[in-house]
Amino acid sequence: MQFTSEQRLDDGILEREFTLGEIPGTLWTPESTAPVPLILIGHNGGLHRRESRLVARARQSAAYGYAVAAIDAPGHGDRPRSAADEQARADLRRAMQAGEPVDEIFESFIGPLVDKTVPEWQTTLDALLALPEIAGPVGYSGWTAVGIRLAVVEPRIAAAGFFAGGYVPRAQREEARRVTIPLLFLLQWDDEGNPRQRALDLFDAFGTKEKTLHANMGGHTGTPWFEVDDGDRFFARHLK
Amino acid sequence: MQFTSEQRLDDGILEREFTLGEIPGTLWTPESTAPVPLILIGHNGGLHRRESRLVARARQSAAYGYAVAAIDAPGHGDRPRSAADEQARADLRRAMQAGEPVDEIFESFIGPLVDKTVPEWQTTLDALLALPEIAGPVGYSGWTAVGIRLAVVEPRIAAAGFFAGGYVPRAQREEARRVTIPLLFLLQWDDEGNPRQRALDLFDAFGTKEKTLHANMGGHTGTPWFEVDDGDRFFARHLK
Repeated sequence: MQFTSEQRLDDGILEREFTLGEIPGTLWTPESTAPVPLILIGHNGGLHRRESRLVARARQSAAYGYAVAAIDAPGHGDRPRSAADEQARADLRRAMQAGEPVDEIFESFIGPLVDKTVPEWQTTLDALLALPEIAGPVGYSGWTAVGIRLAVVEPRIAAAGFFAGGYVPRAQREEARRVTIPLLFLLQWDDEGNPRQRALDLFDAFGTKEKTLHANMGGHTGTPWFEVDDGDRFFARHLK
Repeated sequence: MQFTSEQRLDDGILEREFTLGEIPGTLWTPESTAPVPLILIGHNGGLHRRESRLVARARQSAAYGYAVAAIDAPGHGDRPRSAADEQARADLRRAMQAGEPVDEIFESFIGPLVDKTVPEWQTTLDALLALPEIAGPVGYSGWTAVGIRLAVVEPRIAAAGFFAGGYVPRAQREEARRVTIPLLFLLQWDDEGNPRQRALDLFDAFGTKEKTLHANMGGHTGTPWFEVDDGDRFFARHLK
């Protein structure tokens, strides 16, 4: 893990860019004399890890007392996109806008992306936990499909918050029943891109008994800001 | 309003029993030099307002900085039950345990009870807001059907938290779309006495855009304790 830049923000948080092989990431750590718990923030949809809402979430969680890390998955943010990636994203967008079924595009594009992204998170986790300023336990927050797989294969993940979950590859829908860690499942009741019933079915499927559902109005990007605070409090119950 | 007893609890909260005509109630107020916002706690199912979980909730909200009031609705707690009340409750319990439809018992028994209880809450609200230690705004928490009617007819209610909501009389299911105040709707995902889909349909029907759904596991009486805290924080956003 190589840190390529760092800055101390107004609220005392240290923000560092890093690379780990071909994986680019950002790490936010609070001012603390003792090692702090870690939250991994996953994102999908081709977004950059430095998209403003993601950064604001990360900084709020860091201010709450967590180390927070984000990486760009293959084809996201700073990483190269293949022509096939571009085509698949365009097909997915067009089908969603037209209200057509997207399951097959999802299986062929997002399914393999999950398979590639999860080991990258595990490698990143190895490197982060080797830093003296970070201790366990570890929470995961964000992209549902990657979070399901991580929760199943990675025993160091102690609690997870998932978002949306209307479209999730078949493999992760089946893995959901094997998730046994505490979960906070957040969805937008009127999410234009995520069928509500499928998200509720996924919540129902999780194997853990310690699962909480939160739903709000405002469309896919309209999650109220207090949910970031609720997420931090959820992690405080399980990571401290 | 006549106070019939009072005691100062260990945490500094003043707990007073009162009567208002034939309505018996309890008021919890925090130590405060300034007037505080008020939360009304409604309960149904024939419970007593001094049932231990209700009292614990009330005291936690009072410790958070609210005045909290509970009254026994007709046929509840300290109030006389008619032979017809006893029969209706027995019928309802038997039908629910047998998995039979309960809508008609609900309409004929709970419907009129809501009609009687809501004006009692309004009378109680008049008396409480006349006390120098209590100011607005006012929140309501608990029994869904009474809360829906109150939210529709009582402009002094600024925000509300509802619980369960699988069975709600037809009149309140229709009034739900007229509820426009901020709502926190709490249900148990595996509530043995409240059909989940009906509760979700009710959440969907509320007219307000500021509505949040919380769901947990653990059966009807198994709501995790952190939801009391979440409720206080919800009210803090709207009553302060």
